[in-house]
Amino acid sequence: MDLLARAQEMQAQGREVLHLEVGEPDYATAQPIIDAGIAALCEQRTHYTPATGLPALRQAIAEYYARKFSVEISSERVIVTSGASGALQLAMTCLLDVGDEVLLSDPGYPCNRNIAQLLGIRTRALPVTAADQYQLSAAQLEHEWQAGTRAAMVSSPSNPTGTRIEPQAMQDLLAAVVKNHGHLIVDEIYQGLVYDVADYTALQYSDDVFVVNSFSKYFGMTGWRLGWMVVPEAFVKVIDRMAQNLFLAAPTMSQYAALAAFTSASETILQQRRQEFQQRRDYLLPALQALGFRIASSPQGAFYIYADCSAITDDAFSWSYNLLEQVGVAVTPGIDFGDYKAGQHLRFAYTRPVAELQRAVQLIQIYLNNT
Amino acid sequence: MDLLARAQEMQAQGREVLHLEVGEPDYATAQPIIDAGIAALCEQRTHYTPATGLPALRQAIAEYYARKFSVEISSERVIVTSGASGALQLAMTCLLDVGDEVLLSDPGYPCNRNIAQLLGIRTRALPVTAADQYQLSAAQLEHEWQAGTRAAMVSSPSNPTGTRIEPQAMQDLLAAVVKNHGHLIVDEIYQGLVYDVADYTALQYSDDVFVVNSFSKYFGMTGWRLGWMVVPEAFVKVIDRMAQNLFLAAPTMSQYAALAAFTSASETILQQRRQEFQQRRDYLLPALQALGFRIASSPQGAFYIYADCSAITDDAFSWSYNLLEQVGVAVTPGIDFGDYKAGQHLRFAYTRPVAELQRAVQLIQIYLNNT
Repeated sequence: MDLLARAQEMQAQGREVLHLEVGEPDYATAQPIIDAGIAALCEQRTHYTPATGLPALRQAIAEYYARKFSVEISSERVIVTSGASGALQLAMTCLLDVGDEVLLSDPGYPCNRNIAQLLGIRTRALPVTAADQYQLSAAQLEHEWQAGTRAAMVSSPSNPTGTRIEPQAMQDLLAAVVKNHGHLIVDEIYQGLVYDVADYTALQYSDDVFVVNSFSKYFGMTGWRLGWMVVPEAFVKVIDRMAQNLFLAAPTMSQYAALAAFTSASETILQQRRQEFQQRRDYLLPALQALGFRIASSPQGAFYIYADCSAITDDAFSWSYNLLEQVGVAVTPGIDFGDYKAGQHLRFAYTRPVAELQRAVQLIQIYLNNT
Repeated sequence: MDLLARAQEMQAQGREVLHLEVGEPDYATAQPIIDAGIAALCEQRTHYTPATGLPALRQAIAEYYARKFSVEISSERVIVTSGASGALQLAMTCLLDVGDEVLLSDPGYPCNRNIAQLLGIRTRALPVTAADQYQLSAAQLEHEWQAGTRAAMVSSPSNPTGTRIEPQAMQDLLAAVVKNHGHLIVDEIYQGLVYDVADYTALQYSDDVFVVNSFSKYFGMTGWRLGWMVVPEAFVKVIDRMAQNLFLAAPTMSQYAALAAFTSASETILQQRRQEFQQRRDYLLPALQALGFRIASSPQGAFYIYADCSAITDDAFSWSYNLLEQVGVAVTPGIDFGDYKAGQHLRFAYTRPVAELQRAVQLIQIYLNNT
């Protein structure tokens, strides 16, 4: 985050900065969704909704799973939340007591770990490597599960690595957790942003899973602060009560706007954008490899490439800081995502147009030539 | 909450229900604020804002304190949050570790207690009576403060009682907490909705206080999920970091809309509404007293009357349930707000027009005549 602050400072001083550190799509929200938000405001939809969300939106999300993944989810199991952050907090609060342990991956999205810790939950981040697609495996969970471990959390596709969990591996994870009488939280907030491969959801393989999702990434609704979660039937009531206390409800106009996210007009735009993300990845991945970064497993989702920079530096933090200072390219050092081999990794986000990525690659080349 | 569910069920079956249980203004958001929200969407303001809020909104809130209360607050100390719920969670998380204790009032707003408990914080709710305006006193805090007590939380005006803390009593509370090296969290979310008396903020008396506020009540922006908090300078950085992890940011379009909440066009509407709330209270208060409810201390704020029903029943829960079933009037039993004399109290919300309140009073009279 200090690097982000420095990048903003430099821009305020009039220097050009190329942003390969931003985890937010560059597009504004698709127009049909914005229009639905405007319509909701014109109709004065400004009161609270139920804590678990507008019934029509819960139904629309359930139908989305049916349409896209042929999986039948009762809309009762869909909880609409204030961003995926809200969903994650509800999942952790209802599954884990103070002092209980949740297993995570290192590297992983830092907010997941931090939210747990702020709730008094112990976290243990298990090292994952390129050989494992930077994902926890069932064998690892079984080996590391202890008394006091209550849950594990995985992300597919993952921030920061862009890698997914293969469907068979997901089934193995689900089985490993059940065997240990625990719970699996699956972060699917980058669902929809996958390339080359077919998309899936963990809900295809189990009803006994907490699936966290978001309107922020594929649906491009970051500022609207809207997410959702699909939970086992038995947890609906307790989560309803927790949501009433912790959040009251998700933003009303965002929920009405999100109803338009599932129309074919929106879907067309979102698929075009997905293809553009794929083009960006298809440019950036070989370009980084040509610069000397090792990217062993092909990142098939999200908009991140997690690059092994050990051939270039063992101090990714200083390297990225100097890169920013000297050529104005911002990337995220591995330390933001964990400890394991953090000094040898960098995250590149391809949330900017290809032309900007090309310019960034040129500048990195210049920087490499000068160091 | 079961009563609320039953009220909705009855309405779904076609029965008329008069709602004196709803803690949300009946008005839609004022049109100038809605218009600003629409303008923000037309301008595609759909990306994240900084975690602590739009700088322009933080500045506008600081200026609001200067204009309304002649108190100088650096905009850096203003943290924009996802509703007052978000503010409260941040305040508790940064002030209290797992196992620490916070003192509250009984009766009090149940979510305050529940949020604390969900965060692993111990709560102790101290009985307060009509003689104390249903508010904690400095003497009570000093007497009850123990090893492990880290903070106290008060609300002025209060939900469920509608009573305020007098300015001198607030200064005494602040002094008592400082003396015990603790922190005071002051919930001012009903600020602006006061009648007969001059408004104030705890910030007039101390910079060393956490003041939670909201755009939901006076500003009538419930569904937008937007609140704020003013914190001591020394806590700004840690709260920024916590907000990044727990919430990322408050809804963007809500923040742009809220900028219009401070214009004179909005202020005119909000003051008209305040006067209408006052008319409702001025009708309902003597009408309830005439029915046999005792309302010892005049509620001077919010839109609640906390009535002692001991002359009528010692089982407020059953009484309110039967009232709903027999004549279709929904009120909230004391048990929703604590344990102390809960069976002898009811909360009446005057969030509906006077004509509806009159009809409700007639129906309560009929119910009383029949029991």
